[in-house]
Amino acid sequence: MNKSVILHVIGWILTVEAAFMLLPCIVAVIYKEQSGFSFLITIALCLLIGIPLLLHKPKEKKFFSKEGFVSVALSWIVMSIMGALPFYFSKEIPHYVDALFEVISGFTTTGSSILSDVEALSYCMIFWRSFTHWLGGMGILVFILTILPITGGESMHLLRAESPGPTPEKLVPRIKSTSKILYTIYLGMTILQIILLVLGQMPFFDAVTISMGTAGTGGFAIKNSSIASYSIYNQNIITVFMILFGVNFNIYYLILIGKFKNAFKSEELRYYLFIIFSAIMMIAINLGGITHFTHFIQVSAFQVASIITTTGYATIDFNTWPTFSKTILVFIMFVGACAGSTGGGIKVSRIIIMLKSLKKELSYLIHKRSIKVIRFDNNKVAHETLRSINVYFISYMIIFAASIIGISIDDFDFATNVTAVAATLNNIGPGLEIVGPAGNFGGFTDFSKIILIFDMLAGRLEIFPMLVLLAPGTWRK
Amino acid sequence: MNKSVILHVIGWILTVEAAFMLLPCIVAVIYKEQSGFSFLITIALCLLIGIPLLLHKPKEKKFFSKEGFVSVALSWIVMSIMGALPFYFSKEIPHYVDALFEVISGFTTTGSSILSDVEALSYCMIFWRSFTHWLGGMGILVFILTILPITGGESMHLLRAESPGPTPEKLVPRIKSTSKILYTIYLGMTILQIILLVLGQMPFFDAVTISMGTAGTGGFAIKNSSIASYSIYNQNIITVFMILFGVNFNIYYLILIGKFKNAFKSEELRYYLFIIFSAIMMIAINLGGITHFTHFIQVSAFQVASIITTTGYATIDFNTWPTFSKTILVFIMFVGACAGSTGGGIKVSRIIIMLKSLKKELSYLIHKRSIKVIRFDNNKVAHETLRSINVYFISYMIIFAASIIGISIDDFDFATNVTAVAATLNNIGPGLEIVGPAGNFGGFTDFSKIILIFDMLAGRLEIFPMLVLLAPGTWRK
Repeated sequence: MNKSVILHVIGWILTVEAAFMLLPCIVAVIYKEQSGFSFLITIALCLLIGIPLLLHKPKEKKFFSKEGFVSVALSWIVMSIMGALPFYFSKEIPHYVDALFEVISGFTTTGSSILSDVEALSYCMIFWRSFTHWLGGMGILVFILTILPITGGESMHLLRAESPGPTPEKLVPRIKSTSKILYTIYLGMTILQIILLVLGQMPFFDAVTISMGTAGTGGFAIKNSSIASYSIYNQNIITVFMILFGVNFNIYYLILIGKFKNAFKSEELRYYLFIIFSAIMMIAINLGGITHFTHFIQVSAFQVASIITTTGYATIDFNTWPTFSKTILVFIMFVGACAGSTGGGIKVSRIIIMLKSLKKELSYLIHKRSIKVIRFDNNKVAHETLRSINVYFISYMIIFAASIIGISIDDFDFATNVTAVAATLNNIGPGLEIVGPAGNFGGFTDFSKIILIFDMLAGRLEIFPMLVLLAPGTWRK
Repeated sequence: MNKSVILHVIGWILTVEAAFMLLPCIVAVIYKEQSGFSFLITIALCLLIGIPLLLHKPKEKKFFSKEGFVSVALSWIVMSIMGALPFYFSKEIPHYVDALFEVISGFTTTGSSILSDVEALSYCMIFWRSFTHWLGGMGILVFILTILPITGGESMHLLRAESPGPTPEKLVPRIKSTSKILYTIYLGMTILQIILLVLGQMPFFDAVTISMGTAGTGGFAIKNSSIASYSIYNQNIITVFMILFGVNFNIYYLILIGKFKNAFKSEELRYYLFIIFSAIMMIAINLGGITHFTHFIQVSAFQVASIITTTGYATIDFNTWPTFSKTILVFIMFVGACAGSTGGGIKVSRIIIMLKSLKKELSYLIHKRSIKVIRFDNNKVAHETLRSINVYFISYMIIFAASIIGISIDDFDFATNVTAVAATLNNIGPGLEIVGPAGNFGGFTDFSKIILIFDMLAGRLEIFPMLVLLAPGTWRK
C-alpha cells in the first residue's frame, strides 16, 4: 500500500473543500449570519491539515486499483468528517453524529435528514447542505482530476472507483479532458434548471439550492414540505430535470458532438425511460383510476422520477398511498438510475445485464450446446464485468440484510427498517412509515445512524471501495 | 421436445399418486368418515388418465435436461391439481383455488395454510395434508426412480431437476440405488421420530402426522395452536428432528457406511449449525435477557429450527416478538437449510459459495494478479456451478420482487406482503403480521394466491424447472 500518495490525495481533498466552503461564507455575508464563522474555523482546520499533506511529495509513484479504492473511500470519509463541522460548531445541529449523518447524506446525494425542521437552519447552512449534493453528485475526486497534475494511470483508478456503473468509460483519451467535459455539462444543465425555475417565479435562493439538489440527485429540500409548496410548473421542471440527471452523461457528450444516432441507440436509456413510463402509469391508475387522470399523472411522475433517480424530493406524502403504489416505489428504489449519471441504486444497466445472463442460462439449459455471449449496446460484455456485477449484487444484498438486522435493535417496525436501509443504500432519501416523506431519521440511535452512514457511503461509492478499505488484506504487508 | 416421454412420466405420477391415496382411505375407514369417498373418486380419476399414459410407450428415447425440467415441473403441477380434488369434493375446502393452494403448500413442504380452523377437518383430510409434506419433502419423482425401469440418463436429469441444492450428487453409481438409500434413511428417521414422540405421551395420530410434517420440513400442524399444546419434551424432540431433516442426506449415508470423518468435515454442516446456534443465542438474549435463560433458549431454539429448516411449526406467536428477533427470523428464512435436505430457502451451501466468490473478488481487486479458485469441501467449484448459483440468485430476487408487487394489489401492509412471499418462495409457512403464526393466507384474492402458488413451486423446484416450463424457447421447434 502506497500510503504517501493516498495522503497526498487527501491533502488535495481538504484544500479543495476549504476553497468550496468560501461559498457558504459569501451566503453568510449576504444574509448577515453569525453561523458563517463556523465555516471560517473549518476552513482554517482543513488548510492546517491539508496544506502540509499537499506539500509533502509522495516518495513512490506506485498507484494501482487498490490505492484508487482506498484513496476514494478515505477521501469521502475525511471530507465528510470536516464537512460536518460547520453544523456542529454553529450548534445548528448540536449532536456531532447527527451532523455527520446530515453531511454524508448530502455528499452521497442521499437526502435522508435527521432534521424535523429544516426551515430553522440559517441560509448559509441550507446552502452548504444543498451544495454538498452538487459536489457529491459528479464526485469531488472527478472535480479534482480536472485540476490535478497527476498521471493517466492514477487518475483512471480514481475515476473508476468514484464513478457509478459497471463499466466507467473515458469519453476522450485524456482523463483530465473527460472530467472537464463532465463538469461542464453538469454545470450547464444546473444553470439551465436555475433559469427555468426562476422564470417560474421561484425565489433565486430556492432555485439555486433546489437545482443543486436535483443535479446531484440528492433530495435535500429547503422547506419542511419539500417541493409541495411550489407551483405545478416548477414541480414539472424539477420532474424533467430529475429524469435528465439520471441519464448517463456520455449520452449528453454524444449529443454535444453531434452523434445523435449513437446517443439514442443506448439500451440503458430506452429501458430507463420504459421503466419510468410504466411506473408512472401504474401508479397513476392505482391512485386515481381514470378520473382526474392528468392530476394523478403529474403527481405520480414527480414521485417516480424522484425515486428512480434516487433524488428523494416529494410533493406528497406517498406513505399514505395504497400498498401497490408504495411497492412500485420501493421496487424502483432498487433499480436506480443509469450508470454514469449522478443517481444511485443498482443501476439500470446492471439490471439489464443480469436479466440477459438469466436469459442466457435458460437458453443453455434448454439447448445444452448453445454458447451465447451477452451483448450490451452491441458490445460483448466481458467475463470480468459479468463476474463483477454478480459479486456486486451479492455484496449489495449482504449489506442490505446485515444493515436491516443491525438497525432492528432500535425496535421500529419492519417496513421502516427495510425502507430506511433501502433509502440510504440506494442514496434516495425518504423511505416509508417513520422515515417516510413526512418523517425523518432523527429517531434512530447513534449505532443505527452509523450503520446507515456506512450504507450511504457504500451506496454512493458502489460498495467495493468501502469493502477494500475494510478488508484486512489491503493493509497487510 | 420429446412430449411422449414426458406424458409417460406423468402417467407414472398419477398412478403412484392414486396408490398413495389409499392411505387416507384407510384412515377414513378407521375413523368412519364419509370424506373417504372423495379420495376414491380422485383415485378413479387418476387411474383413468394415468393408466393410458403409462401404457402408451414413448416413441423416442431422447431425454435431455430440458425434458427433465419440464417433466418435473409438469409432474408437480399435475399431481397438485389431482391432490387438491379430495378437499374440494368433500367440501371441506369448498373453493378450488384454496384447495390447490393448500395441497401445493403441502407438496412443496411450505406449510402456509388458507384455513383458519384446521381442527374442523376430518382425520383423513388432515392425514392427506400431512402426508403430502412427507411425499414432497424427498420428492415424488425421486420415489418413482426407486421403482421405475428407466435408463441412467433420464433418471439423472429427473433427480437433478427435483433435488435441492447447487450440485446434486449420486451417492452410489446407480440412480435407482441412490433413491432407495435416500428413501430408506428418510423413512427410518421418520419412524424414529414417531416412536420418540409416542414415548412422550403424544397420541399416535398426532405423532404420525407431525413427524411427516417434520420429515418433509413442511409445517402443517393438526391443531390451531400448531405445536404449542404439546409437552416441552415433545417440542424439543421436534426441534432436534427439524434440525436433522435440514441436513444434507449424503451425510447420513456417509455415517451409515462408517465414514464418520468425511461426514463431519462437511463445510455446509458446520456453517448450518453455527448459524442455528448464533440465531438461537441472539434471539434468546433479545427476548429474555439473562433471566429465565433456559426457557427462552428452548422457545428460541424451536422457532429458529423451524424457520431455518423452512418447516414452519410454531410454539409461540413470534409476530409479537421485538423487531430484532423477528428480523433474525426473516433473515434465516432466506438462508434456508442444507442442500440435499428436505428443506427450502437459498441453501447454506449457496450462501457459502457466494460469500467465497465475494472474498475472491476482493482479493482480486487488492492484488490484481492473484488468481484464486473457489473451493468448497476441498473441491474446486466448477465455473458452471458458480454461474448457475449467480443466475439462481438473480432469478430468485426477480421472482421475489415481482411477487411482492403482484400481491400488493390486495393492499395488505408491506411487512405482510414481503414475508408472505418470503414464506412461500422459501417454503416456510408462516410470515409476519396477517400471515404470522396466528394468522393465515385465506385473506388474499385468488390472483395473489396463484402468485404465491407459483412461488411455492418455484421455491421447491429451485426455480429453473418452472422457468424452463414457461420459456417460449422450450416449446419452439
